[in-house]
Amino acid sequence: MTNLPRSSFQPPLRMLMGPGPSDVHPRVLAAMARPTIGHLDPAFVGMMDEVKVLLQAAFRTGNALTLPISGPGSAGMECCFANLIEAGDTVIVCVNGVFGGRMKENAERCGAKVVLVEDEWGKPVDPAKAEAALKAHPGAKALAFVHAETSTGVASDADALCALARAHGALSIVDTVTSLGGIPVLLDQWGADGVYSGSQKCLSCAPGLSPVSFSERAVGVLRSRKTKVQSWFLDLSLLTAYWGGGAKRAYHHTAPVNALYGLHEVLLMLHEEGLEAAWARHGAMHDALKAGLEAMGLGLLVTPSARLPQLNAVLVPEGVDEAAIRAQLLARFGLEIGAGLGSLAGKVWRIGLMGQSATPKHVMACLGALESVLAGRVAAGAGPAAAARSLFG
Amino acid sequence: MTNLPRSSFQPPLRMLMGPGPSDVHPRVLAAMARPTIGHLDPAFVGMMDEVKVLLQAAFRTGNALTLPISGPGSAGMECCFANLIEAGDTVIVCVNGVFGGRMKENAERCGAKVVLVEDEWGKPVDPAKAEAALKAHPGAKALAFVHAETSTGVASDADALCALARAHGALSIVDTVTSLGGIPVLLDQWGADGVYSGSQKCLSCAPGLSPVSFSERAVGVLRSRKTKVQSWFLDLSLLTAYWGGGAKRAYHHTAPVNALYGLHEVLLMLHEEGLEAAWARHGAMHDALKAGLEAMGLGLLVTPSARLPQLNAVLVPEGVDEAAIRAQLLARFGLEIGAGLGSLAGKVWRIGLMGQSATPKHVMACLGALESVLAGRVAAGAGPAAAARSLFG
Repeated sequence: MTNLPRSSFQPPLRMLMGPGPSDVHPRVLAAMARPTIGHLDPAFVGMMDEVKVLLQAAFRTGNALTLPISGPGSAGMECCFANLIEAGDTVIVCVNGVFGGRMKENAERCGAKVVLVEDEWGKPVDPAKAEAALKAHPGAKALAFVHAETSTGVASDADALCALARAHGALSIVDTVTSLGGIPVLLDQWGADGVYSGSQKCLSCAPGLSPVSFSERAVGVLRSRKTKVQSWFLDLSLLTAYWGGGAKRAYHHTAPVNALYGLHEVLLMLHEEGLEAAWARHGAMHDALKAGLEAMGLGLLVTPSARLPQLNAVLVPEGVDEAAIRAQLLARFGLEIGAGLGSLAGKVWRIGLMGQSATPKHVMACLGALESVLAGRVAAGAGPAAAARSLFG
Repeated sequence: MTNLPRSSFQPPLRMLMGPGPSDVHPRVLAAMARPTIGHLDPAFVGMMDEVKVLLQAAFRTGNALTLPISGPGSAGMECCFANLIEAGDTVIVCVNGVFGGRMKENAERCGAKVVLVEDEWGKPVDPAKAEAALKAHPGAKALAFVHAETSTGVASDADALCALARAHGALSIVDTVTSLGGIPVLLDQWGADGVYSGSQKCLSCAPGLSPVSFSERAVGVLRSRKTKVQSWFLDLSLLTAYWGGGAKRAYHHTAPVNALYGLHEVLLMLHEEGLEAAWARHGAMHDALKAGLEAMGLGLLVTPSARLPQLNAVLVPEGVDEAAIRAQLLARFGLEIGAGLGSLAGKVWRIGLMGQSATPKHVMACLGALESVLAGRVAAGAGPAAAARSLFG
């Protein structure tokens, strides 16, 4: 017992510009520090109802079955697959990065026959390939894809892909972990069926919660399942009774009370700003960052039409040790950016401009710090900060 | 959009004496409000290592595979079953309350053949019945039971039950959600194999995390699985690479950073007090509460030898509307106590003395408030507070 840690953990001050978590606003930290109350307390039940309404608005949906899963985004992903898929179902999974690959894993663990639609990492999902797969596999239960691939910074065309799924009688399962709050996520307009997101990206809440939403068509599929959902914890029939019952809600698990205080607060902040304004801010910060990066001679992996403003995959210049650069940014500037994953490891940095980390301050600090640690290995010239500053007006 | 909630949630001040969550100390609320950092930040990785060591000490185990699941206790339960059980395995599940029943559900959803060992709600698991089931089902993969049944306030003999499982070549799966930190939880002494707990009971953290621990024997079973774990999110082979890899850890999910700050802090506080001192405190507060309840003429459901000090199932007097009493306690005194569940609904109140809610202040406030709202329906006499006070010395 003498070797036990004895000191409270005091996190260093960071500027979070990786692939998430993003910087959490002091309002949200303060919300999470409010006194814990019981998860069956009438006051808490009222707050849960508010969270549902705020989430519906964030997702632009009227879906009644909209709630936060009490776990991270990967629990939300599993919730979608475990509830909508049964053993023997055919699922078409579009893979163009890490998280499409994770979808494949999830579908397989539900006993699905998986058909892959593969696109190169750094490219969007090709709707023509998805359509061909749907045609080749009539009766497929679902088409699954990632709207915003965090591993590459690519946006895929959710509207087109959901429409294709619907046209072929398949459900759409959509990962919006990195898109919600940063670019338009329009569930009802898309006609998306099973959707999950995360708290720690463009919502700028602490990590640990996964908002999900299911269309009426998806709810019909849930109701007509032949087998029980293999996960008790993620079984939507039980979660609905807990989250949807109003005063009569049925005990399922104990909700993460303080984490939900935080989610309530970030959703309020999102709607105070307005969804359109938040999307515009992410776009403007991306333009400024890109101008600065280009002034340094740094390029982006993704073609302009498919770039996510909130996740910028920056090509590492020839001969630069990308990990050493990240370590210097962290040590000298307290600035966190992300590494490449999988086939992009060592080849890109991932610079996040998500939620509270999508501000002029973050853009300028990041450009200045990068210019400093890359000195001599990138163009100096007029200076990236000047290029970016010209865009802030 | 005009009907969206517009105000931050301000929780009412409560005194939490239900079945959990318990009162969270301001130190812990402050810890959860520290700035979020990245889950791959070297500083955070160091904190994760400390959390593991602190958890091992709390569980009294050297088990290398000891970590907090990023979800509530029901996710921890599912983690144990989904990893240790494969389709076709026989699992003996002891049911003497709600959470034993939930174990049965979990085992079934893993495809197990479940053998039930049933005891009356309010009674401990009978080791003789468990032994008979183990004898009748040679080759059973596991014996599962709840150490501290939150639904009834009953402690079962974990030492004896784990020994029986071992003697018959079965794994033990043990629910310690309500016991950890309140009464002795001695994994290595018991020889327990798969164990889960919760953050929001006698640890007095916010709800949302589930510490788990697995013996070497259990790890051997994990390694020799024939099939993949049906849950990707809870797959221990992936979680081990995330939590156990030190500087080389492999990305799995994004850990709930701020919730883990809180868990780190409550574990520090537990070890500052000392495990034995925490157990003694829970016992002393139970004795005081019981003395006061008895002075009012209120009885306890559970026989003295099996009572959990931290969860007191109090018999509702004849003719009293138990829900109305709870509502009055909440409205007039800000005091939360719990209702009975299942077959005990309407028949008992559940008064928790867990973690930071196991203090003389809580005991006195609860007795005083109960005496007030039950005035005329329970004995007044010398007064419950006097009876309890005599025990504080």
